[in-house]
Amino acid sequence: MTDTKTMPGMARTTVSPDASTITAPTQFIETSLETYAYRRFGAGAAPPLVCLQHFTGTLDNWDPAVTDPLAQGREVILFESGGLGRSTGEVPTTIPGMAAHLLAFADALGLTQIDLLGFSLGGMVAQQVALDHPSLVRKMLLVGTAPEGGEDIMHLEKPELQKILGDPTLSGYQVLVKLFFTPSASSQAAGQAFATRLAARTEDREPVSGPKVAQAQIAAFRAWERVDGERFGKLRRITQPCLVVNGVFDQMIPVRNSYMLGEHLPNATLLTYPDAGHGSLFQFHDSFVQQAILFLDS
Amino acid sequence: MTDTKTMPGMARTTVSPDASTITAPTQFIETSLETYAYRRFGAGAAPPLVCLQHFTGTLDNWDPAVTDPLAQGREVILFESGGLGRSTGEVPTTIPGMAAHLLAFADALGLTQIDLLGFSLGGMVAQQVALDHPSLVRKMLLVGTAPEGGEDIMHLEKPELQKILGDPTLSGYQVLVKLFFTPSASSQAAGQAFATRLAARTEDREPVSGPKVAQAQIAAFRAWERVDGERFGKLRRITQPCLVVNGVFDQMIPVRNSYMLGEHLPNATLLTYPDAGHGSLFQFHDSFVQQAILFLDS
Repeated sequence: MTDTKTMPGMARTTVSPDASTITAPTQFIETSLETYAYRRFGAGAAPPLVCLQHFTGTLDNWDPAVTDPLAQGREVILFESGGLGRSTGEVPTTIPGMAAHLLAFADALGLTQIDLLGFSLGGMVAQQVALDHPSLVRKMLLVGTAPEGGEDIMHLEKPELQKILGDPTLSGYQVLVKLFFTPSASSQAAGQAFATRLAARTEDREPVSGPKVAQAQIAAFRAWERVDGERFGKLRRITQPCLVVNGVFDQMIPVRNSYMLGEHLPNATLLTYPDAGHGSLFQFHDSFVQQAILFLDS
Repeated sequence: MTDTKTMPGMARTTVSPDASTITAPTQFIETSLETYAYRRFGAGAAPPLVCLQHFTGTLDNWDPAVTDPLAQGREVILFESGGLGRSTGEVPTTIPGMAAHLLAFADALGLTQIDLLGFSLGGMVAQQVALDHPSLVRKMLLVGTAPEGGEDIMHLEKPELQKILGDPTLSGYQVLVKLFFTPSASSQAAGQAFATRLAARTEDREPVSGPKVAQAQIAAFRAWERVDGERFGKLRRITQPCLVVNGVFDQMIPVRNSYMLGEHLPNATLLTYPDAGHGSLFQFHDSFVQQAILFLDS
């Protein structure tokens, strides 16, 4: 079942309440900035949950074990930012540039209040959106991410990451299994299950990101690390309830960045998982979803 | 309704399923070490939850808003360690000495599997009990506490704590309101509500701890701060599921001690609360109880 809504002054958008991360059709919306690809599914009384993706990730990198159960109490909207997948434009080299894409998208869709699930890079964009347009954002899930002025953010040149990124025997999702999960047997098993779930969508997929996307996003990470003025001062202005989540062994954006968020955001609860890395939400998807629903519905 | 159980080789113990933190009668049990005061109430299928108290705290320092709802799915047993309240003996000057009291108590009551709620000092004792008698302990809630080898544990001589402890206008529970809660209006209001709840038990109360108790417990804190051998090495042996909880503005046992627990205990989830100090479980009692039940029942 699908339901095509046309709202005044807005493009047509199709909500697919019975669709899922695997089956929701990719839609496109023309905005004041770019034309964005997105997927929209689920139903419920809560504000839509807009999901902002990680470094080089596309719509196809959302784990059905996370986004499907969340869509049972709300619409889930997976957003493809400018320059990624089939969205037009160039990837910005700053987080505020990426936030502008989300704001243009939300405006074109007529969204006036949303919750945000920002993972990694997406969590930085979420913070910026909350700063730039506070009234749009009700609550935020900030997973595996860092505040502006954070530390050791996505330094792919580090030996422990180069060991994975330079391994010729790893390709496709197997790189993510090593990057997002810890070396323990249980974490690697969770990683393989995650890879299997991501592969379940076989049609209407997005093109994989190339080096140009990575380069622009890395530039944005470097800019985000810089401390301008009072360190973490901007976080005081993000008064929305936040649930900050990370694995304690995150090598891409170390957990101390989540501690900084928990200590400096005025209304953030922090949750960390043991034996988990950057992809803690995928490894502990049942617990994460339970916690996310508890948080979003409270 | 009360139910007096007599088990082979054991002292009589009364479980009061309908009693509460405020109404449960204080009981006494003679053991191989000392005679301990305790209160026991609630009912349910889960293992009993034994509660281990903070610095100078007695049975009367348990907050009904925490321990009453927890008693709806399990027995709650409030334990008065040696030398405190009406328990006989001297307060040990080491955490292992305190753990020995709990073990003697559990043995005398015939408890073979328990969950532990250890707050502050009690969380240290809980870790030691798990090391000394692993099979006794199923799960642990470790709140506002620190690992052995932790940092800045209960240094009452610090200016920010002396300001409270040396304030002649503060007495009784008002000291706790300042020590356990942050200066914000909402945290202080939560603190006053906590003080009111503690005062609700008016009969069958324990004597208040004197300077001798404090002195011995401070000695135990100093010993607990010392690093012997590999720092945090013992935590690897505590394989029980743990939920570590703290407020991000804890001045008595700073939150970084909870980070250490989350990073070094092999199976610990960490939860931190914003705008909260040492008494985060009392400030956010609804959320804490919800999370504790989720954790204990999962």
